Amino acid sequence: MVQTGCVNVPWEAAIGAENLGSLGEFGLIDALSAWLPAGPRTLVGIGDDAAVLAAPDGRVVATTDFLIEGRHFRRDWSAAADVGHKAAARSLADIAAMGAHASGLLIALAGPPDLPVPWLKEFVSGLAAEASRAGAAVIGGDTSRADLVVLAVTGLGDLAGRAPVLRGGARPGDVLAVAGPLGHAAAGLALLASGVRDDPLVAAQLRPAPPYDTGPEAAGLGATAMIDVSDGLLADVAHIATASGVRIDLNTDLITNGGSTPELTLMLTGGEDHSLAATFPPGTELPPRWRVIGEVVDGRGVTVNGAAYEGQAGWDHFR
Amino acid sequence: MVQTGCVNVPWEAAIGAENLGSLGEFGLIDALSAWLPAGPRTLVGIGDDAAVLAAPDGRVVATTDFLIEGRHFRRDWSAAADVGHKAAARSLADIAAMGAHASGLLIALAGPPDLPVPWLKEFVSGLAAEASRAGAAVIGGDTSRADLVVLAVTGLGDLAGRAPVLRGGARPGDVLAVAGPLGHAAAGLALLASGVRDDPLVAAQLRPAPPYDTGPEAAGLGATAMIDVSDGLLADVAHIATASGVRIDLNTDLITNGGSTPELTLMLTGGEDHSLAATFPPGTELPPRWRVIGEVVDGRGVTVNGAAYEGQAGWDHFR
Repeated sequence: MVQTGCVNVPWEAAIGAENLGSLGEFGLIDALSAWLPAGPRTLVGIGDDAAVLAAPDGRVVATTDFLIEGRHFRRDWSAAADVGHKAAARSLADIAAMGAHASGLLIALAGPPDLPVPWLKEFVSGLAAEASRAGAAVIGGDTSRADLVVLAVTGLGDLAGRAPVLRGGARPGDVLAVAGPLGHAAAGLALLASGVRDDPLVAAQLRPAPPYDTGPEAAGLGATAMIDVSDGLLADVAHIATASGVRIDLNTDLITNGGSTPELTLMLTGGEDHSLAATFPPGTELPPRWRVIGEVVDGRGVTVNGAAYEGQAGWDHFR
Repeated sequence: MVQTGCVNVPWEAAIGAENLGSLGEFGLIDALSAWLPAGPRTLVGIGDDAAVLAAPDGRVVATTDFLIEGRHFRRDWSAAADVGHKAAARSLADIAAMGAHASGLLIALAGPPDLPVPWLKEFVSGLAAEASRAGAAVIGGDTSRADLVVLAVTGLGDLAGRAPVLRGGARPGDVLAVAGPLGHAAAGLALLASGVRDDPLVAAQLRPAPPYDTGPEAAGLGATAMIDVSDGLLADVAHIATASGVRIDLNTDLITNGGSTPELTLMLTGGEDHSLAATFPPGTELPPRWRVIGEVVDGRGVTVNGAAYEGQAGWDHFR
């Protein structure tokens, strides 16, 4: 008699399971399904070969992102819940940057057998909380073994009948605006490296809080292009400039809100805030969360106050 | 002037790039987008914050699966194209097991900087070929750095208006049938471990070929439950039995097609073939690719010729 894959057994039933190794693959899946509530779009959730999600307008927005221990987070710096929030945020911000509402997340989690069950519980609770903040639910995933914690999160979303906001639609005359902070996560990383733990900027690094609802808001306002600021403002705005065949000029007075600040480099090049940068037709009335920081002009690439920017513009995982 | 993220530059433009490190993250994304054609359901493909895929019946089927070097494949055993085929097959088979047609794949690829560009090209070509065999296209992904090759593939699919075939619908009186081979991939793994390379069973391990179209076929025939045989027949059929609240009795004469074979253990417990196992109402006329191998009865769990099976039933990544 084979008895594997008991469905919907709560964490508490995993008596004696102290870590991922003793919980086992199917124990983990059961625990995940017990801990993660279905969402309004979940037609089939965790526990079958695949999930089924509603896609009411006949299209689904989809993205996948890694979060790898030692590369994107450190377990000695991040609480498990932080890792869950961050893993979800990376994909959820990509969905928002298309002008879509997130609806579902798939979570692939690999880790070492000695990963403690309490760590897993906190991670899952952070993941679910961040998904819920964006209006999404965890609908499925996969588990495997690895020496480090490796997460790959797939976000799925809904355009609610609108056209997606791509990178290639910026036109000369448009304004560039941003919603959410710039450079906070990068400043937090620098503080962590220097031993500081108790600072709001550190929290911004450990648990970024992208303004998800500004994505669909921008789409509704007629945004011509949009991207999430994951690699740094210069690098990400350059993607819009390249895809649109335009030049985008950043205004540092607007970025720093009128003054010169020592943080300007971080604001121009720091990634991981997952704020949204979008271009809008001239004259668009923008809500207060959108701050105009530049303009779209003829040409190519990105300039800062009309001139080339010298220095490393952003992050490349292989360099 | 920042110039990152040139879009749609072919591999050949990556002059001097010998490996992932010199190609860089954005070079890799550009190369992927040049090499991977859009599919019929691709509305927005590789190169934006997220992809957009058509979901004509207002639902999307979604699954994600790891393929980790040293755990699911070895680069000294598998050609790069094999790894691509296998990475795609794991997710595509899950989509088929819901009774759905695959439509899109997202590929998250992490690897060491010294991963050769020719390896990447062959991997991508295998991935695209397997996706195409299932009717799907690669629509997006992510890249990062890791000491080993880590792949997380998300499969998306379309139910074409039908209800998904879940694990929980088997009823006493149903027959259990399988489409595709049993134990071939496990036999191939044993051969590889003993030094054999040139054998069709080795090919079945390195490049499984799930019968994707039998998934929607089974749904059309009224299948009451379905699963893909990834962990071994006993273990996977046990998931159907548990979810359905029934016992499933396997008939070894039917499994071995009338004779006793030394491979029976592999056929009962070997995983990775990604064949499909499904239950059908009594009297269902099954096409030749579906072989009846057991029956659904009252009770719990899985039995073999009416008795308990002694031994390890399948694979758990953490045990």
